[in-house]
Amino acid sequence: MEKIRPRTLSGFMELLPAQQVLFDAMARKLRDSFSLYGFTPLDTPLMEAAEILLAKGGGETEKQIYSLRKGDADLALRFELTTSLAKYVALNYNQLTFPFRRYEIGKVYRGERPQRGRFREFYQADIDIIGDGGLDILNEAEIPSIIYRCFASLGLKRFEIHVNNRKMLNGFFELIGVGDKAADVMRLIDKLDKIGVDKLSETLADEFELAKTQIGRIIDLVTYTGDPFDILSNYTGKNDMFDTGADELATVKRHITAFGVPDTHFKIDLSIARGLDYYTGTVYETYLTDYPAVGSVCSGGRYDNLAEYYTERKMPGVGISIGLSRLFYILQEQGLLNSSMLTAPADVLIIPMDGALGHAIALATSMREAGLRVQIYGETKKFKARVSYADKLGVPFAVFLGEDEIKSGTITVKEMSSGSQTTASAGILTSGLIKKIAELRGGAPVKE
Amino acid sequence: MEKIRPRTLSGFMELLPAQQVLFDAMARKLRDSFSLYGFTPLDTPLMEAAEILLAKGGGETEKQIYSLRKGDADLALRFELTTSLAKYVALNYNQLTFPFRRYEIGKVYRGERPQRGRFREFYQADIDIIGDGGLDILNEAEIPSIIYRCFASLGLKRFEIHVNNRKMLNGFFELIGVGDKAADVMRLIDKLDKIGVDKLSETLADEFELAKTQIGRIIDLVTYTGDPFDILSNYTGKNDMFDTGADELATVKRHITAFGVPDTHFKIDLSIARGLDYYTGTVYETYLTDYPAVGSVCSGGRYDNLAEYYTERKMPGVGISIGLSRLFYILQEQGLLNSSMLTAPADVLIIPMDGALGHAIALATSMREAGLRVQIYGETKKFKARVSYADKLGVPFAVFLGEDEIKSGTITVKEMSSGSQTTASAGILTSGLIKKIAELRGGAPVKE
Repeated sequence: MEKIRPRTLSGFMELLPAQQVLFDAMARKLRDSFSLYGFTPLDTPLMEAAEILLAKGGGETEKQIYSLRKGDADLALRFELTTSLAKYVALNYNQLTFPFRRYEIGKVYRGERPQRGRFREFYQADIDIIGDGGLDILNEAEIPSIIYRCFASLGLKRFEIHVNNRKMLNGFFELIGVGDKAADVMRLIDKLDKIGVDKLSETLADEFELAKTQIGRIIDLVTYTGDPFDILSNYTGKNDMFDTGADELATVKRHITAFGVPDTHFKIDLSIARGLDYYTGTVYETYLTDYPAVGSVCSGGRYDNLAEYYTERKMPGVGISIGLSRLFYILQEQGLLNSSMLTAPADVLIIPMDGALGHAIALATSMREAGLRVQIYGETKKFKARVSYADKLGVPFAVFLGEDEIKSGTITVKEMSSGSQTTASAGILTSGLIKKIAELRGGAPVKE
Repeated sequence: MEKIRPRTLSGFMELLPAQQVLFDAMARKLRDSFSLYGFTPLDTPLMEAAEILLAKGGGETEKQIYSLRKGDADLALRFELTTSLAKYVALNYNQLTFPFRRYEIGKVYRGERPQRGRFREFYQADIDIIGDGGLDILNEAEIPSIIYRCFASLGLKRFEIHVNNRKMLNGFFELIGVGDKAADVMRLIDKLDKIGVDKLSETLADEFELAKTQIGRIIDLVTYTGDPFDILSNYTGKNDMFDTGADELATVKRHITAFGVPDTHFKIDLSIARGLDYYTGTVYETYLTDYPAVGSVCSGGRYDNLAEYYTERKMPGVGISIGLSRLFYILQEQGLLNSSMLTAPADVLIIPMDGALGHAIALATSMREAGLRVQIYGETKKFKARVSYADKLGVPFAVFLGEDEIKSGTITVKEMSSGSQTTASAGILTSGLIKKIAELRGGAPVKE
């Protein structure tokens, strides 16, 4: 038979077993963190009618969509999770209770040109809080504490959550007389990290034709290094939108500490704008302190109309998204994954000698009842090959069952890391193994 | 703006929040069970090059495949998990350790005509053990105990695992002189439950042109109600294939009890054949005792060549697959989901009165540190509406923080189910809540 070359599509992440365990541990930590804040899990379809996914329109995204036809139906794979949430909330409005807090960790698809660290199939981990008619600022204030807990639970130590407010920015641009260009100017400011102050000034002058004083005020604001509320106070009382935004920013900042976010991990950053038209209030970006070039690894903000394509009902929300596959890739690249984490498929490998199979099965069954992950090595191989199986997989303990053990009603346990062997009754050794395995199972997937 | 009608594609399961929690609990129980037997998690891409997915060919399946093009690439969505496993093992052969035990719980796609309880996007939960060159019969003997633990852990009580052996069946058909028609006869026997004995006899006579004695022997075998090894002994010693198969069946049966499967949940069933050419040894089907019409909810078997489309290397395996979405649908239809399971998004809803927000945030933070899932109700609504929010979501405890509580340094906890209220220090009440929530969190997703 002619053979096919096995391959995985480029841009599709497929992990080896030990990596997969670390990835799953990251996803589990995120789920646990989201749950502590009262978010309910959703798992929406990956495929939707094309009109649902394209409701928002949007040139670049549309080109990247994987679309397909089945019969006379135009279908497409989702490229983000928010679109599905909007449909879900509109469809199930009468059966949901608002504010509706949901998380979804799921795959999304974008037919981008593949490049290092950019994927065509990747996981996003999203949370959103959706209000019916209104949504209190408290929800916006709570988001940084969720981001903080998520990243801390992964094992990350050096990261910083940046917060700004779009109402404040919009008001500011009105105040300095560039309200009509606000959206474009914000998209430019978003690039400040990449282009630098000089290029920003130059573009504001040449392309946007702003006056020198206008440019000066913008640069002063987005590069201000003192207490941000000092510079904001210069503009207070002159524009309602600005005042509301600055108040919201102050409220968010006031609550942050009570929510348990250390000052070291949080910053009001007047230069982040999140240029999408979508956002209307608090906005968030999260940076890994030592890897600024990576950009934000968790972003989001407040928006006013989740389901506007479906309903007249006003449903404001606030949400964030973590690009989980990309984050995993970066952590792996930087050597930050916790290599001492237990990634073996089993805690114990039982190696029965001739005639000990019945005893091995009974032992495995009782150990599993006690919560240990157990594999019996049943293949006919030399002793050395059997032990090396445990070694290769990183299984921490091997159990030998031979004639001597069966005669004396004992088992022999070998700790693979140290090589030390102990022979005693199965009951006693199982209790010891449970304790040792509990220790090995602790720890976070990232070690910074 | 013109509105779009929100809809989910037919044949795509999309659950309401409380159902999703139950579904996730089922998936988690399966993962935990698979892990106890030393299986490692994989998460392979949902999309593959079309040639990979179609390597096996297969008329009916091919028609159901969702295929798509991007640039000049022919792509398709996977319709089962085994195809991806075969590619994975062939691709990563040098980095895997054999026997390789993996589980994958993932979505697959089949463009079937939608009908009740049949889905186009659905979860399969698969385990497979892949050997390199050979694979001991012990692995086949272990599978029923994994099935048993999986279903028991879900909370199911009334189910039965049926086991047969394809070598025995093939040998038997050779012995009675219908070896050349074995595959077709087996596919017919698979339908015995649906068509009955009379129709089976008739078809064997009319379509397959078997002699009366041949038909008699087939019917005797597949309807035998005594000890199956009694009827098998009639054929022993005449055909090597038959003898090997019968021996394997005896070995599997011998180990079953040591592996912890009660006799009540296990049966040698000479009538199950699993007609796919793929299977070459032990085969499994699992039935819900009270819902025979549903058919098998967990099937699989031994096969000889996992990766034959990619490599000359012989890689035998044994595996089973649970149609998780379908199983969930059936359990829901039959009212077997555990309605008393805690499906609320939070354990505690904190309802702060005017001026108590700072205290509420600090309390929520400390309760979350203690592992409780907490939501603060921050919307400006009447008291009744706030309490009713907890009620609607099924949040078991509401905490009131008002002037009195803040003055006296206490909190008031209301148990929503009984309506009873207690006022005491936050520390004392939190400890009590942790205990009560731990009790509520127990229990299985199915209540039979």
